[in-house]
Amino acid sequence: MNVAAAGPLLVSFDDIAAAHERIRPHARRTPVLTSATIDAFTGARVHFKCENFQRMGAFKFRGAFNALAQLTPAERKRGVIAFSSGNHAQAVALAGRMLGVPATIVMPADAPRVKLEATRGYGAEIVTYDAASASREELARRLATERGLTVIPPYDHPHIVAGQGTAAKELFEDAGPLDMLLVPCGGAGLLSGCAVAAKHLAPVCRVIGVEPAAGDDANRSFRTRTLQTVHNPDTIADGARTPSLGRVTFPLVLRYVDDMTTVEDHELLKSMFFLWERMKVVVEPTGALGACALLEKKVDVAGLRVGVVLSGGNVDLAWAAAKMLGR
Amino acid sequence: MNVAAAGPLLVSFDDIAAAHERIRPHARRTPVLTSATIDAFTGARVHFKCENFQRMGAFKFRGAFNALAQLTPAERKRGVIAFSSGNHAQAVALAGRMLGVPATIVMPADAPRVKLEATRGYGAEIVTYDAASASREELARRLATERGLTVIPPYDHPHIVAGQGTAAKELFEDAGPLDMLLVPCGGAGLLSGCAVAAKHLAPVCRVIGVEPAAGDDANRSFRTRTLQTVHNPDTIADGARTPSLGRVTFPLVLRYVDDMTTVEDHELLKSMFFLWERMKVVVEPTGALGACALLEKKVDVAGLRVGVVLSGGNVDLAWAAAKMLGR
Repeated sequence: MNVAAAGPLLVSFDDIAAAHERIRPHARRTPVLTSATIDAFTGARVHFKCENFQRMGAFKFRGAFNALAQLTPAERKRGVIAFSSGNHAQAVALAGRMLGVPATIVMPADAPRVKLEATRGYGAEIVTYDAASASREELARRLATERGLTVIPPYDHPHIVAGQGTAAKELFEDAGPLDMLLVPCGGAGLLSGCAVAAKHLAPVCRVIGVEPAAGDDANRSFRTRTLQTVHNPDTIADGARTPSLGRVTFPLVLRYVDDMTTVEDHELLKSMFFLWERMKVVVEPTGALGACALLEKKVDVAGLRVGVVLSGGNVDLAWAAAKMLGR
Repeated sequence: MNVAAAGPLLVSFDDIAAAHERIRPHARRTPVLTSATIDAFTGARVHFKCENFQRMGAFKFRGAFNALAQLTPAERKRGVIAFSSGNHAQAVALAGRMLGVPATIVMPADAPRVKLEATRGYGAEIVTYDAASASREELARRLATERGLTVIPPYDHPHIVAGQGTAAKELFEDAGPLDMLLVPCGGAGLLSGCAVAAKHLAPVCRVIGVEPAAGDDANRSFRTRTLQTVHNPDTIADGARTPSLGRVTFPLVLRYVDDMTTVEDHELLKSMFFLWERMKVVVEPTGALGACALLEKKVDVAGLRVGVVLSGGNVDLAWAAAKMLGR
């Protein structure tokens, strides 16, 4: 077992409850939807937590607001910087605007147009880089040092994880006890936060993380109990192109997550459009990871009460339309 | 003023309240969503009643279930027949299956694939006809006579109208008082039912019906107070290709609706995709009529609390993808 796996558990349910009090007046309490079609297809009773309806279109607002709300007055004044493939960027930009904190965002130049535009729309300063050659983390840390900015990491921070866990807290409050919870996994900010909440609120609930097969570092890390990495994996789940789990999230995943699974991109695309067509919800590829594991029967759910986090809906419609007609 | 305009008001708020008790255990209480983006763009506080999340994907379930639930045991046993461009077909098929009533559906042969398939999936018998040459109403009435079936009309029946009005009743219960309500209009089953509910629950609320410009018969009927018709109008809003208002709905529209407006198909398509991209909800063209009047500024909403009924989400994704890439 390596250092990360043996590391301390830095987020408790109390942290999630405190985060919930902090963000409740500002975040949206997203609806929980059900589908008779999907229940009939799976033999389960499925509750979808629709974080695609969250402010800025993804769960990321929860963690970003929770982190920015805990900055000191001096830190707020100097501002924050974030590196992100998209949704975390919008989340920090929006939370910054709401809290009066200047935000600088480091984004890959090839990020979806809708995400670049929305981030600029929230008033953040954008710095782009070439995803194939540069490390966004190094660039962000250099800019932070030069300008005195606080780095808001996309997932590996206790305040981020605690914020994301509020999504599962709300799901259990609204849907009642669940036997299984399916959560998309990139760097596991959402997964680990939701796992902490689930195990506190329903100890028998099995928590399953779902990754794209091309970026299966968390699956391998989970199975080997040693931190594994990927480099810029080729997957349509752009929110799950993260290089590895982190010092905060990996120990939480090992402690609270029951299993991990992967889905192929072609399965993910099919599930995404199924959600659009049958549930009438626009979900982005990364946001459909948990639902895909369900719809592609990667997990046995017959007779169970299942929760699925639909984590985001920020997808470029023109891209999706081209994919749809090409299938 | 012609006979229809002078006709009796056949639906009261009590009918809507009774319909609500009848359908409440079976219909979905659809969520009311808001959007900071749309509020900022319009200067209003807008509440969207998401009937695209209703069972079978549209408000039509409400009226169909309310009508079928009031059949006599003998009528239930013989079965029902409906003529519909789509959503009413699925609604009658599903309500029939839930209540054990055999359903025969007369549908245009060129109805969206997703609607034909879903109707068959609910176990109804489908009879198709050529929309350009035949009258679906005549065909349905002939089949009804031959087989002893009860005709369930798509909009012009008090039980249908009362059922559809429950959508507005729920919206007011969940969103509080509203200054304006924007409702899609085909044959005005939804519009007239919602208008009855709105005027009872919030007498100062202005109720506005929205039609596609190519099928503006209700606008002309409203302004002339004489029933006007269209024949198979060329519009992407397939749920609003209805030939005219009806004997039940026209008097209710004249009594309770404050104004009517129209939108062009290109505006409707733009608004529809705006709802997909920014609100993450899949809405069909007809379902976006009310939102389009808002987004294209056909009505003055500055400073108002506005309700918008998103009436359905049953759209063929491949059709939408082609439209999107062609714009």
